[in-house]
Amino acid sequence: MSALLTPLEFETRLKKIKLLLLDVDGVLTDGSIFFVEGQGWTRVYNVNDGYGIKLIQKFGIQVGVISGGMSDELKERMKVLGISHVVLGSEDKGTSLQKMIDLTGIAAENICFVADDLFDIPALKRVGLAVTVPGGMPEVKEIVHFITSKGGGKGAVREVIDHIRFAQGLHLAE
Amino acid sequence: MSALLTPLEFETRLKKIKLLLLDVDGVLTDGSIFFVEGQGWTRVYNVNDGYGIKLIQKFGIQVGVISGGMSDELKERMKVLGISHVVLGSEDKGTSLQKMIDLTGIAAENICFVADDLFDIPALKRVGLAVTVPGGMPEVKEIVHFITSKGGGKGAVREVIDHIRFAQGLHLAE
Amino acid sequence: MSALLTPLEFETRLKKIKLLLLDVDGVLTDGSIFFVEGQGWTRVYNVNDGYGIKLIQKFGIQVGVISGGMSDELKERMKVLGISHVVLGSEDKGTSLQKMIDLTGIAAENICFVADDLFDIPALKRVGLAVTVPGGMPEVKEIVHFITSKGGGKGAVREVIDHIRFAQGLHLAE
Amino acid sequence: MSALLTPLEFETRLKKIKLLLLDVDGVLTDGSIFFVEGQGWTRVYNVNDGYGIKLIQKFGIQVGVISGGMSDELKERMKVLGISHVVLGSEDKGTSLQKMIDLTGIAAENICFVADDLFDIPALKRVGLAVTVPGGMPEVKEIVHFITSKGGGKGAVREVIDHIRFAQGLHLAE
Repeated sequence: MSALLTPLEFETRLKKIKLLLLDVDGVLTDGSIFFVEGQGWTRVYNVNDGYGIKLIQKFGIQVGVISGGMSDELKERMKVLGISHVVLGSEDKGTSLQKMIDLTGIAAENICFVADDLFDIPALKRVGLAVTVPGGMPEVKEIVHFITSKGGGKGAVREVIDHIRFAQGLHLAE
Repeated sequence: MSALLTPLEFETRLKKIKLLLLDVDGVLTDGSIFFVEGQGWTRVYNVNDGYGIKLIQKFGIQVGVISGGMSDELKERMKVLGISHVVLGSEDKGTSLQKMIDLTGIAAENICFVADDLFDIPALKRVGLAVTVPGGMPEVKEIVHFITSKGGGKGAVREVIDHIRFAQGLHLAE
Repeated sequence: MSALLTPLEFETRLKKIKLLLLDVDGVLTDGSIFFVEGQGWTRVYNVNDGYGIKLIQKFGIQVGVISGGMSDELKERMKVLGISHVVLGSEDKGTSLQKMIDLTGIAAENICFVADDLFDIPALKRVGLAVTVPGGMPEVKEIVHFITSKGGGKGAVREVIDHIRFAQGLHLAE
Repeated sequence: MSALLTPLEFETRLKKIKLLLLDVDGVLTDGSIFFVEGQGWTRVYNVNDGYGIKLIQKFGIQVGVISGGMSDELKERMKVLGISHVVLGSEDKGTSLQKMIDLTGIAAENICFVADDLFDIPALKRVGLAVTVPGGMPEVKEIVHFITSKGGGKGAVREVIDHIRFAQGLHLAE
């Protein structure tokens, strides 16, 4: 059974978000990886996602990343985007979520988690707003509150950020 | 004439699968390759496919790879995914299939082979479940039992794995 | 409210263009970036865009690039395309536009600017012809005069160039 | 005015082809290029195209490549595919075509040329079968005999090869 929300319920949950928690593969990327000698598995990121992440942090929403991956380029990307809460190298996302809660002191109901695969399900079930992408696995789609229209690595994260920004009235000065 | 199956025939064949045999180019990738000095021809893989391969092996389904390619990054990918049965560097897929049968002791009718090009046809005709991708060559599409809806390198392999998992009742503990 | 033009207004503005000003990420690329050790963030460009840029400069239309990015490969691309007006490393596109106006002596109404994200809006609002791509942010789409049909990095820039060429009667000798 | 053929005219021209002449960017690739330090501009090729090129050469159809590009990886790709007739580094495709005719002794009416941009037009107008891809420039689409359904770098070349093979009855032994 899908957990999809009415627009009003969606807005209510968006307003409570204090931490945006992101999976990497399939969410900040389209799930593609390639190997580069001396650097390891390399990912392709999206610049509009990146600007959104920098922007929402300026507005006081915290951003965290949890991923099973752990290559140099991934750490470099986290540094460029100024993401302070990063838990890499673990596929146990339930434990990674708990670490994030302990680290930030932000309750699960104030967290939006965007993820796409089976091992993300325990963490997705705990957070206040669970989101996946069009390429998310069928079991994940069944339990999330919202599915983005843009794909992972193609602006899905920016889309979530803009929903949070608009719901919370966080607009750029003209 | 197409060899496409009824849903019931498809499920019957899925239940018998003990070895999932995968072509690389066009199946584990979208057919794209690029050259990196000192590394050779490099491919772009899909993370959801990768997790599916690791998962199904835990459930006791064996996974093998046969490919005409043979670059360092391909070997690295096979290592990361824990694929023990790998036959690289040969475009003669009929011989490669026989090697796999000899190596694993698994009969052709218990093998699902996913492939996309002309030289894969002799092997596709021998196995219990022959699968191709939407980008498979016309002659290949004519003789397979099933065509995935997701493209090669875009989750096609994960789609096949999930079909096998669901037919055989191999679910993750909640 | 959208600022989209009638075909006649569009042609009138196209005829006045003396400088084509381009954003990089999302416009000359599809917004994708990946990291290469020793080279930094790397982008994927489009060859048809590249030929269009070289061609329109031969016809006397100037081309400029303003981007927040500043990697070696970006400078290399600008060199290959013979783009003399380049302002890199600043996300403040309003200031970058003014630098371009001072540098070239071309008035804002004779400039076509193609861009896709929030920080481009002040500059987009000043120029004679403001253009974005299908993947442009919603707020950007609201204020531009024209949205290309091809995506960024997939020929969007070439599409704009061809509109300028056709409106100004700049055809190749047969 | 389009030069598109009736199916019968198309088949008549396919039967005469002795040399398949290919543009690189936008035809053997989707037009994307990226820069790698020490290697230069790098392209992404398609494996099904590659196998088709090797296959048709075995059947006695010659394959040539003419391109304005000239990087190491391009030369490497030509070597892997066993393409003996290669003219690189010149954007003047009319002259490159003449070189190919002189080199191979094959008349223009027995040549199929696949290309996508303005500078290819003089050569496209001379050959027996002029082909472009869905992403070809509008002026190119107007003068070719055939537009592939698959995109450049996504199997367009293989599609042309299969048309030639089927028209000339060049089938693999079963």
